[in-house]
Amino acid sequence: MEIPGRYMLTDIIKSKTKDGKPYLRAIMCDRDGNRRNGIMFESNKLDFDPQNGDIVDAVGMIQQFGGQDQLKISTMTVVKDADPSEFLPKRGINSEELIQELELILLEKITDEHLAALVDRFFKDAETLDSFKKMPAAKSVHHAYVGGLLEHTLSIVRLSVLVGDYYKDLVNTQHLIMGALFHDLGKVKEMQAGTGLEYTDSGKLLGHLLLGVEMLNKYVSEIEGFPEDLKYLISHLIVSHHGLLEYGSPKKPKTPEAFILHHLDDMDAKLNTFFSIFERDGVEKGWSGYDRLLERQLFKHS
Amino acid sequence: MEIPGRYMLTDIIKSKTKDGKPYLRAIMCDRDGNRRNGIMFESNKLDFDPQNGDIVDAVGMIQQFGGQDQLKISTMTVVKDADPSEFLPKRGINSEELIQELELILLEKITDEHLAALVDRFFKDAETLDSFKKMPAAKSVHHAYVGGLLEHTLSIVRLSVLVGDYYKDLVNTQHLIMGALFHDLGKVKEMQAGTGLEYTDSGKLLGHLLLGVEMLNKYVSEIEGFPEDLKYLISHLIVSHHGLLEYGSPKKPKTPEAFILHHLDDMDAKLNTFFSIFERDGVEKGWSGYDRLLERQLFKHS
Amino acid sequence: MEIPGRYMLTDIIKSKTKDGKPYLRAIMCDRDGNRRNGIMFESNKLDFDPQNGDIVDAVGMIQQFGGQDQLKISTMTVVKDADPSEFLPKRGINSEELIQELELILLEKITDEHLAALVDRFFKDAETLDSFKKMPAAKSVHHAYVGGLLEHTLSIVRLSVLVGDYYKDLVNTQHLIMGALFHDLGKVKEMQAGTGLEYTDSGKLLGHLLLGVEMLNKYVSEIEGFPEDLKYLISHLIVSHHGLLEYGSPKKPKTPEAFILHHLDDMDAKLNTFFSIFERDGVEKGWSGYDRLLERQLFKHS
Amino acid sequence: MEIPGRYMLTDIIKSKTKDGKPYLRAIMCDRDGNRRNGIMFESNKLDFDPQNGDIVDAVGMIQQFGGQDQLKISTMTVVKDADPSEFLPKRGINSEELIQELELILLEKITDEHLAALVDRFFKDAETLDSFKKMPAAKSVHHAYVGGLLEHTLSIVRLSVLVGDYYKDLVNTQHLIMGALFHDLGKVKEMQAGTGLEYTDSGKLLGHLLLGVEMLNKYVSEIEGFPEDLKYLISHLIVSHHGLLEYGSPKKPKTPEAFILHHLDDMDAKLNTFFSIFERDGVEKGWSGYDRLLERQLFKHS
Amino acid sequence: MEIPGRYMLTDIIKSKTKDGKPYLRAIMCDRDGNRRNGIMFESNKLDFDPQNGDIVDAVGMIQQFGGQDQLKISTMTVVKDADPSEFLPKRGINSEELIQELELILLEKITDEHLAALVDRFFKDAETLDSFKKMPAAKSVHHAYVGGLLEHTLSIVRLSVLVGDYYKDLVNTQHLIMGALFHDLGKVKEMQAGTGLEYTDSGKLLGHLLLGVEMLNKYVSEIEGFPEDLKYLISHLIVSHHGLLEYGSPKKPKTPEAFILHHLDDMDAKLNTFFSIFERDGVEKGWSGYDRLLERQLFKHS
Amino acid sequence: MEIPGRYMLTDIIKSKTKDGKPYLRAIMCDRDGNRRNGIMFESNKLDFDPQNGDIVDAVGMIQQFGGQDQLKISTMTVVKDADPSEFLPKRGINSEELIQELELILLEKITDEHLAALVDRFFKDAETLDSFKKMPAAKSVHHAYVGGLLEHTLSIVRLSVLVGDYYKDLVNTQHLIMGALFHDLGKVKEMQAGTGLEYTDSGKLLGHLLLGVEMLNKYVSEIEGFPEDLKYLISHLIVSHHGLLEYGSPKKPKTPEAFILHHLDDMDAKLNTFFSIFERDGVEKGWSGYDRLLERQLFKHS
Repeated sequence: MEIPGRYMLTDIIKSKTKDGKPYLRAIMCDRDGNRRNGIMFESNKLDFDPQNGDIVDAVGMIQQFGGQDQLKISTMTVVKDADPSEFLPKRGINSEELIQELELILLEKITDEHLAALVDRFFKDAETLDSFKKMPAAKSVHHAYVGGLLEHTLSIVRLSVLVGDYYKDLVNTQHLIMGALFHDLGKVKEMQAGTGLEYTDSGKLLGHLLLGVEMLNKYVSEIEGFPEDLKYLISHLIVSHHGLLEYGSPKKPKTPEAFILHHLDDMDAKLNTFFSIFERDGVEKGWSGYDRLLERQLFKHS
Repeated sequence: MEIPGRYMLTDIIKSKTKDGKPYLRAIMCDRDGNRRNGIMFESNKLDFDPQNGDIVDAVGMIQQFGGQDQLKISTMTVVKDADPSEFLPKRGINSEELIQELELILLEKITDEHLAALVDRFFKDAETLDSFKKMPAAKSVHHAYVGGLLEHTLSIVRLSVLVGDYYKDLVNTQHLIMGALFHDLGKVKEMQAGTGLEYTDSGKLLGHLLLGVEMLNKYVSEIEGFPEDLKYLISHLIVSHHGLLEYGSPKKPKTPEAFILHHLDDMDAKLNTFFSIFERDGVEKGWSGYDRLLERQLFKHS
Repeated sequence: MEIPGRYMLTDIIKSKTKDGKPYLRAIMCDRDGNRRNGIMFESNKLDFDPQNGDIVDAVGMIQQFGGQDQLKISTMTVVKDADPSEFLPKRGINSEELIQELELILLEKITDEHLAALVDRFFKDAETLDSFKKMPAAKSVHHAYVGGLLEHTLSIVRLSVLVGDYYKDLVNTQHLIMGALFHDLGKVKEMQAGTGLEYTDSGKLLGHLLLGVEMLNKYVSEIEGFPEDLKYLISHLIVSHHGLLEYGSPKKPKTPEAFILHHLDDMDAKLNTFFSIFERDGVEKGWSGYDRLLERQLFKHS
Repeated sequence: MEIPGRYMLTDIIKSKTKDGKPYLRAIMCDRDGNRRNGIMFESNKLDFDPQNGDIVDAVGMIQQFGGQDQLKISTMTVVKDADPSEFLPKRGINSEELIQELELILLEKITDEHLAALVDRFFKDAETLDSFKKMPAAKSVHHAYVGGLLEHTLSIVRLSVLVGDYYKDLVNTQHLIMGALFHDLGKVKEMQAGTGLEYTDSGKLLGHLLLGVEMLNKYVSEIEGFPEDLKYLISHLIVSHHGLLEYGSPKKPKTPEAFILHHLDDMDAKLNTFFSIFERDGVEKGWSGYDRLLERQLFKHS
Repeated sequence: MEIPGRYMLTDIIKSKTKDGKPYLRAIMCDRDGNRRNGIMFESNKLDFDPQNGDIVDAVGMIQQFGGQDQLKISTMTVVKDADPSEFLPKRGINSEELIQELELILLEKITDEHLAALVDRFFKDAETLDSFKKMPAAKSVHHAYVGGLLEHTLSIVRLSVLVGDYYKDLVNTQHLIMGALFHDLGKVKEMQAGTGLEYTDSGKLLGHLLLGVEMLNKYVSEIEGFPEDLKYLISHLIVSHHGLLEYGSPKKPKTPEAFILHHLDDMDAKLNTFFSIFERDGVEKGWSGYDRLLERQLFKHS
Repeated sequence: MEIPGRYMLTDIIKSKTKDGKPYLRAIMCDRDGNRRNGIMFESNKLDFDPQNGDIVDAVGMIQQFGGQDQLKISTMTVVKDADPSEFLPKRGINSEELIQELELILLEKITDEHLAALVDRFFKDAETLDSFKKMPAAKSVHHAYVGGLLEHTLSIVRLSVLVGDYYKDLVNTQHLIMGALFHDLGKVKEMQAGTGLEYTDSGKLLGHLLLGVEMLNKYVSEIEGFPEDLKYLISHLIVSHHGLLEYGSPKKPKTPEAFILHHLDDMDAKLNTFFSIFERDGVEKGWSGYDRLLERQLFKHS
């Protein structure tokens, strides 16, 4: 039975059948954030050239393929002026409130002249800020919903204030907070602006750590007299925050702030993952199903 | 030139030379916490049988052996009634103040009837408490000085209050605090009571995670009606706090509190290690020497 | 087509559909030891609250889901007084004969007063003994059938006698045998008593190594004058028998008996796995299919 | 016996003795490229503030410390206008000839308009070019002598021409050559300009892969219309050339040129290391000593 | 619907159903190189005993099993005198041309008397040569088509000439070329002669590195006065060419030629894999699908 | 003070000083099995060309170098007709008795015609047998004394009889015994015949697993009708006995006998290592020193 629906297309692959006819595969996301494999044969008959992030009205039939449901599309038309963010998983994040809270904390805590100029630059970069407010923190795993990147960043900033103050004799809380602010900022360029469900070319080739450093370098180049050693210290916080080379950090943490940032980031991401797994498995308490990424079952006792 | 000195003996090895004469090797700690290899030939002429933890007055000569200084002992007598804790590295920890702060936090935060009974049992176990107040948190690496175990434990308890409250909708702060309190308690039995500079047999055979669970089980067995599932949840916090099997945890963290405890413990230990390395290297700021354990140089920017 | 059948339920997960209606998933084991995914919608209409280990009469339809067969249940009633062990895979183990042989070996070989008392305690712990006789050694992989734990334990005890006697100048055969007896005993508590097909909470949180030490500690606490160092030596055999930290042993083997026990256990388990794989693959000789756990194909030449 | 000598100072550590007197440790390199530990007590009496890279005339005595020779310095004066490159290990590299050969190859092979502009920018960056000509490729291990970085880079460029032409239907030889040119360029900033024997702060905090990308980004920002995707492709060649995350590449090779560049770089470095080990060990043919970095002995059969 | 077809059988497993009736599973390859699971019940009714490599005419029905298509065979007859190589994947390799080019290079480059005798022996071993010309280099992954082994070997020989000449002062090009010639020769015995789609028993038990050494030893035993040290040097090139123990080389590379051979082999195989993945995924440019073996997506920019 | 002594030379390295004068380094073993670094300058004045395994009378002085004792040799003459085995560590192994026991076991247990012929070939290979009787099982670590290889091999053969009989329904005991006999035989060629203290070129290039297979192949080639599949099964036992690729086995164990052989070999070697460590450390009971190879301290309780 054919069913109509509205979807966002991502992960498009255009290919040819053995007898040379063009066809198209794509991930189709509906407005509930569900993702489904789609396939359309004779895609040369379409009256538009499908691009990642396009919103379409499609009619198709569900069939089994390789043990998974697949939507075999018969007709598909593009929808202009649709809002892509409607098609991302959502959790009711109020981005405006969060961004205001973030700005307030930074205004209060960042008193160093150059770092304050850096914060200022960031909040004046409207394009980046706009993506930053909508972006998930990841395609899956943790904070994978509209506003997740902002929510996670704000959480690390808050924790940095708490823990930086706790260790105030030992660490530079302002550095720590700046590391928290920028640690995942490169995700704004690593994932498709506006969709957040697909990695960009530069994201796959360099990754968000290096893209974040590139963004930082750009801001710094616009601030007169920004000390070079300060630039490298903040950059180090960004690139070392995965903690180990095998997790993609080209350098291990070497400063007290880098150690702390790594732990806070991993802790916050793991906790969010924890509750996402229970939600995904539809389990309220007790044991989750086996999670292949964490390689364990999880236990929620209340 | 022979020099006299007072030392605590640890790591004693009694052996024989090729021609069958008994001799003795030991680590000799002086009152500044320095440790030096010692050797005494014809140890059968001693008028006492040296044991780990003995305090002695020894006369000997410094000589080079295998590229290291060695104290070649000519005479040695045991000193009765000496205080072993004098011979441990110290950093001016006021154990009494810390233990009071710990007790106050627990009294305020632990309201669950069974957990409060557990806290009560712990504070009434005078022998354990006495060791707990003096013990270093490790023979080397982090918090390796009199009172270091207490200082580190209190720090994790405080951080647990901060972070548990931050995530109060997601985690059970009381469980987290109990895990913080007991996570390293087994070190009281893993290291020699009174000396703290040598591992015990049970410490080497089982380790402080399992010895901690054994102590918890003993307290629980004295509390009527203590729920078995609660016992296992707290035990899980103890045994999983190293985070990974290869770091000696027989189970990976599976509860939200276990994830947090692992991160707080590692973060606090790493920070203490960080500053210990700079102290050891006699460096005030800039780069430390290469640290073989962390496999990197560290940077202290202020 | 709907078919009726009798099953044991395990791995129950109770959840809700998107429109908020309760449903239930479970593994359904029939009397041939086959396991199948089951799902029942509108599970609120059941007249009992399904628990792991329940025996049920269910009527349902086989359907494909995610590339696997699934039993979609329409009606289900609980069967009282059914024997759960009927629903476990079986291989004709005569538990009574095996337990007698085990007891005979222990009576003959264990002459040390305290260890003999420990053996005595074990054989008088009727509840444990009862589970021990029925339990598989694992949910899958090796000795995964009724009586498998007993069969595997007896095999390690026998091999310990052989190898302990072979190295009799070097090792303490009685210690080795005690380690063999208790090495997997914690599985009695790690897996569901009576079913053996599901891990318990304490099993997942602590694992059978630590649960085994807890059982040993309980026996020892009932034996007057049991030497503490002996307790720790036997405990070490239990906790180190996986051989490496990454396999879940919190300590590596440190005594001759611990090295031997690790090798005998792994050898016996691997051999049993070897023949189970050929049975699973329905292959009599030649090459098995690729086994994902062992990461290889296996060859049986006769 | 006190002996006078001229040295370059590196790895300076300024510290204090227990009684609070300043002293200084440093590596002292003589003009044969030998490196020796130096120590000077009462360093406050010096009439200059020693910096890494300073050339000094020092008088001192050789003594054993920790199994190694150490130069105990009694007096030390700084030498102005001395040439630091005299104090680096040398192998008779003619940098001017090599740089000309490099330029000729690039002029001939790089025909793409934007890449040619990039080459042009590089050859006009006099300061970088000057360092590039003198720098070793590493502090030790491979090409560790004046001009080593240039020699190694030229070798990879030549091999890229050979192998790129061999696979000309499959790979973009111009991209490959640009990757070869820039792959280690960040070492110019990772190591001390003028000395090349010490890592810089930014070198330790970010490493030469990221510093190379930063330099590339600066050149690109000065070229109008340089395509962004081309910038990221060349950046990917730089950051992935270590081949694996655990070797410090934040991304694994993902393009054909990246695979080839990784192999050519590792092959050329390993061959240079091979012959350096035989030179270091003073062995002409047969087996080298055991090399701890490569974890093997090496065999040179002719 | 039943469909007839001609197939080559491989990976045959003969087994019995629960009620004791013989059945047969096999991989069925058609002439387009497609591979499909086949199953035939009541295989005792066949009038021949199916062997790996048999060509058959079979009639059967496609059905879903475990999420994959499966051919359920109703009748099957063996086809005598069919050519198995028709059933392998092909890419239009002209084996005769390639073997002539290989021979020409070897005649020109190998001037050492004993090595030339070795080349001569190889080209006179008609049976081996015949397999060598047809064999794929692997069942899948790289050069997995008729003539792939020859194509890959010739490529490594060519690259050895290029790179050996480039480093001519450092390496023995003749040794390197001999290593290139023999490095994968054992695959002729590791995979089924004539089919190339199935590993032999000796292939699974020893692997192509050791089988290659066995073949080399046989040739050498027929050449009078072949120096033993030369035999071991060439053998070392064969056994070390996977580069690391964990990739199946029992020794790591220890000679300059061994380092180079490892890199050239891996580089050539990876490039071939690269383009095979894009072909498999039906992608012309841009990103491939995620490849589980390489654990990444790949990017082809033109 | 100069002292005279008789030594065996091994690990000779001939080199030149910076001013071009030849000198010589070697390991000097005395008749107690002690090994010491030796160095002789102006080695061109010697009236013989020193080779590994030479016995010499040398006069020299002990000096410290790099934190270790070193014998600086002033004069050295070669001793003809000396027995090198005098200079190996010894433990009173009666090789003749052990070889007789080995032969008796094999005669009794190996009844298969072809395997018996193989045993016969082995015992008739006088040269190999002679080395086999004297060789240590390793340069250090386990069974590192004259006759150690024989002692270890016999032990594995005995254990194979015990364990093969225990599992007699599951494994082929004759295969297992043959694997035990040949598993380390390649060490006869891996280490210097007559000295056993130095690896041979072929030993370093191929290792004892492959050299053992080469020896087996030679024996088999002399036995008419020896089944090829049997040859590969025994070869598999040899090459897989290290258990994992990263331990140098090019294939993992795939037959029941291969699993058992791996475990028996590792168990016997580890036990021998265990007691060697206590002997080396001069400890009778309690804890050994930290062993860097096993990465732990060991405990001997009686």
